[in-house]
Amino acid sequence: MIKTMNFLSTSDHTSVISITLFITLLCACIVIGHLLEENRWMNESITALIIGVGSGVVILLLSGGKSSHLMVFSEDLFFIYLLPPIIFNAGFQVKKKQFFRNFMTIMLFGAIGTVISFTTISLGAIVFFQKMDVGLAIGDYLAIGAIFAATDSVCTLQVLNQDETPLLYSLVFGEGVVNDATSVVLFNAVQNFDLSHINTSVAFQLVGNFFYLFITSTVLGVVAGLLSAYIIKKLYFGRHSTDREVAIMMLMAYLSYMLAELFYLSGILTVFFAGIVMSHYTWHNVTENSRVTTKHTFATLSFVAEIFIFLYVGMDALDIEKWRVVSDSLKTSVSVSATLLGLVLVGRAAFVFPLSFLSNLTKKTPHDKIGFKQQVTIWWAGLMRGAVSMALAYNQFTRAGHTQLRSNAILITSTITVVLFSTVVFGLLTKPLVRFLMPSSKQLNRTISSEPVTPKSFLAPLLGESQDSEAELFIGNGLMSRGEGRDDKNFDCPSRLRMLFTTPTRTVHYYWRKFDDAFMRPVFGGRGFVPYVPASPIERSTHNLEQEEEAKH
Amino acid sequence: MIKTMNFLSTSDHTSVISITLFITLLCACIVIGHLLEENRWMNESITALIIGVGSGVVILLLSGGKSSHLMVFSEDLFFIYLLPPIIFNAGFQVKKKQFFRNFMTIMLFGAIGTVISFTTISLGAIVFFQKMDVGLAIGDYLAIGAIFAATDSVCTLQVLNQDETPLLYSLVFGEGVVNDATSVVLFNAVQNFDLSHINTSVAFQLVGNFFYLFITSTVLGVVAGLLSAYIIKKLYFGRHSTDREVAIMMLMAYLSYMLAELFYLSGILTVFFAGIVMSHYTWHNVTENSRVTTKHTFATLSFVAEIFIFLYVGMDALDIEKWRVVSDSLKTSVSVSATLLGLVLVGRAAFVFPLSFLSNLTKKTPHDKIGFKQQVTIWWAGLMRGAVSMALAYNQFTRAGHTQLRSNAILITSTITVVLFSTVVFGLLTKPLVRFLMPSSKQLNRTISSEPVTPKSFLAPLLGESQDSEAELFIGNGLMSRGEGRDDKNFDCPSRLRMLFTTPTRTVHYYWRKFDDAFMRPVFGGRGFVPYVPASPIERSTHNLEQEEEAKH
Repeated sequence: MIKTMNFLSTSDHTSVISITLFITLLCACIVIGHLLEENRWMNESITALIIGVGSGVVILLLSGGKSSHLMVFSEDLFFIYLLPPIIFNAGFQVKKKQFFRNFMTIMLFGAIGTVISFTTISLGAIVFFQKMDVGLAIGDYLAIGAIFAATDSVCTLQVLNQDETPLLYSLVFGEGVVNDATSVVLFNAVQNFDLSHINTSVAFQLVGNFFYLFITSTVLGVVAGLLSAYIIKKLYFGRHSTDREVAIMMLMAYLSYMLAELFYLSGILTVFFAGIVMSHYTWHNVTENSRVTTKHTFATLSFVAEIFIFLYVGMDALDIEKWRVVSDSLKTSVSVSATLLGLVLVGRAAFVFPLSFLSNLTKKTPHDKIGFKQQVTIWWAGLMRGAVSMALAYNQFTRAGHTQLRSNAILITSTITVVLFSTVVFGLLTKPLVRFLMPSSKQLNRTISSEPVTPKSFLAPLLGESQDSEAELFIGNGLMSRGEGRDDKNFDCPSRLRMLFTTPTRTVHYYWRKFDDAFMRPVFGGRGFVPYVPASPIERSTHNLEQEEEAKH
Repeated sequence: MIKTMNFLSTSDHTSVISITLFITLLCACIVIGHLLEENRWMNESITALIIGVGSGVVILLLSGGKSSHLMVFSEDLFFIYLLPPIIFNAGFQVKKKQFFRNFMTIMLFGAIGTVISFTTISLGAIVFFQKMDVGLAIGDYLAIGAIFAATDSVCTLQVLNQDETPLLYSLVFGEGVVNDATSVVLFNAVQNFDLSHINTSVAFQLVGNFFYLFITSTVLGVVAGLLSAYIIKKLYFGRHSTDREVAIMMLMAYLSYMLAELFYLSGILTVFFAGIVMSHYTWHNVTENSRVTTKHTFATLSFVAEIFIFLYVGMDALDIEKWRVVSDSLKTSVSVSATLLGLVLVGRAAFVFPLSFLSNLTKKTPHDKIGFKQQVTIWWAGLMRGAVSMALAYNQFTRAGHTQLRSNAILITSTITVVLFSTVVFGLLTKPLVRFLMPSSKQLNRTISSEPVTPKSFLAPLLGESQDSEAELFIGNGLMSRGEGRDDKNFDCPSRLRMLFTTPTRTVHYYWRKFDDAFMRPVFGGRGFVPYVPASPIERSTHNLEQEEEAKH
């Protein structure tokens, strides 16, 4: 008698099954990840990967060796739904003060460093893979450079403690985000060109395209963020509806991404800078409830999206179709994977140590230089490869998740191997390595943070309060240096690193503050927009900042 | 030189344009809706409808009269992405105490009433449309009954003030939610049957199918909600990560919906009861930040989904394809729309007044009866037709948003007409009508709420605290009645209504509380799960409850 199935399901009941199973697995990842949290060797990414591989095995057996995944990889899914929340959240949760203090260093490592890494890996791929007879075009080699220049520093960040080594953390985090954006921009720039015959003009156009994408995308993100701040400030939603504010913030963030895509720019960069601007201005214009809600909602969406990607990658690792194509040339496949892993190690070393050296040359005091152990930590932090690499590889080497071409299948399986190996093996080694390299960091930094080294009043000028003066600023900085100078004996302590990255942009930061107070805040709001009762102003503002900073993480 | 477009966009750049425009329009609706908020005649639904129609005109002109909307209507979009957050949020934000106190009345109006309305409209459609020679099958008539039995009480709720008339509000709200679920279940039940030759056996199977869907869906929702509470309580995420808790709550809510779809049940009912259970248990097991975040996130998602639907309906109102098909039989189309509007009015009157009369028969004192003016308000509150009607109509009368059949096109355009007319005209008349019917409600209720009519200690037994005893409960209720008895002179005041709906389920509610405290809370947590310092316990618990209730809305 029952003629048709439930009308929701007639459309595609198998997709309902897939979605249900996938959500169940996501829940399992979160719960198991939580249970394994005590074990600091593990993390959500590794858990999701392992659960993904496990489910892949089960599905492979159930389907009689036909398929190992629940859904076909979709670029749209990744680039339109999963990546934007991750990158936006990265911008939104970034410790802006640290980020902008270290802006030059972060950009040096994140942008220039990624380009060096990209070049090294591309050249290495050309040299080695042509010998191996993999059979790739010049565009593929450049794409490989971009694919494996995209780091995944989530694992390291879970080991580096933000309170113990705030500046190293900020550096690794900032570099990771700029690196994501840079590698996607590089990938786009490479794809947009006909690379069949390279000459100087093409190379220049490539560089020009890169800078064009980088700058316009950034500007668009900043404009979108400022617009959201302006709208919310002008209408002052806060007095009316938290839901409207949250809706506007979410929609504007997503709109910035879609606008970038509309104009063929890099949505990643746009949404990252929109996130920064929105956390600097918009977030301060809304109600307390909206702040809590947006902060946690963006973090949750990012968290779920990351687990989703790792789960998918884990499931796809066993995709029988690709392995079957590869199985004839197993030796080639293994050597390609090994070569790529080697290139990743070399490509990162090729910029971390030289750029650190260059950066050290500009410093006068030995305190300001980056110690060798810090350099090693920065190098190691960027060795993991993750979701972005996977997505770019799928984009370059498959059509809708499928491939029959031998060379493409080899590169897909090699990418999976590199991602799995680097995430699991490098990931598991990170904690012991960091503990080995910086054994005293825990005790040392605890001492620093428990001591009131910098009197609070000296911080005030840096907080962007209107009463800051140039004199105060430099007194503040001077005393901060002296305060941190107490740790002279500890040669490798992070406070030296901190001074290094703080110094070059100190004046830039100072003028930005001036400009921000004079022109930006009156228009776009931001911290202090909500009328503020002056009672022991400096003390109060410092407290506010601290709460702010705590709230941010 | 630029060979391909940005790789994100190659897939489908036109869809990027649509999404961007649509998000921009959503933002515009929110901002304009906010600006018009002072004008209480308007609301977000009407604003979105008007903006949708406006954009439809622009798109129609730009596209040279080809199309008026940015995206083709997709059932999946509506039923998998937009409806679940709306219904879940309805369950999550419902004032549980009020809802369960009035449970019997709400179910009477929401379930039985909707069935009566469905029957009236179906029979009316059979009688009138067969005369008009519209050309429909028996299944279509029953579908029309289900489509137009689905009310949209959002407009009325924006006019009824929750603090002024809490019980009338709760009644209209509760009825609206149960009505949504019931009409979707009815629609499914009708679709699942071969209705070419109706006999008693088929009718019984239809009724059986309805109850089967209703009960199993409810049970699944309750189980999913309890599971989420149990998981979070057992793992006690609260001490660790707000993001994990929020993620688990969101995923479990969505999972319950997908599971219902998987088993061919009613996702709507499931997710509604999952929402109620999650707000009763799970929500109390998480951190303060998680509570704020989930409350506002769910509300925001629901808010955006509603605006999305109205915007879409507005845009689709001008869809030239359907109007062209209809234009030949304009007279039929107009009379179909008018007939449907009439049937909606009659169908609702057919159950509100008789059921109120039945309900009044069981009451002893005149205070407990529903006054005629309250009945009219309840009747009017359910006259608007909205998103659910649209979605069901599209499901029944189109294939992927398109139709060429004359009869189907007539019914789609008539549905659009009814939705637009009822939302705009009835919607705009609601405020004056409510003010006319209950002129004193504002002053009256302000008096009640400002006076401490019920001493706080008497409320304690009703709050589910462990020290409640049967004696206290009835003393409490007795005094509550006496307290409210002060308003005897005001014949039509809502407090009478309140007593009526409170009485029949008072004992059910009491035994539920007992059961809840003895068996449910020890396992699933809920209010009071977080260790609680006993200092003036009754006073404290009453305060907690009040804060709770405030926080819920």
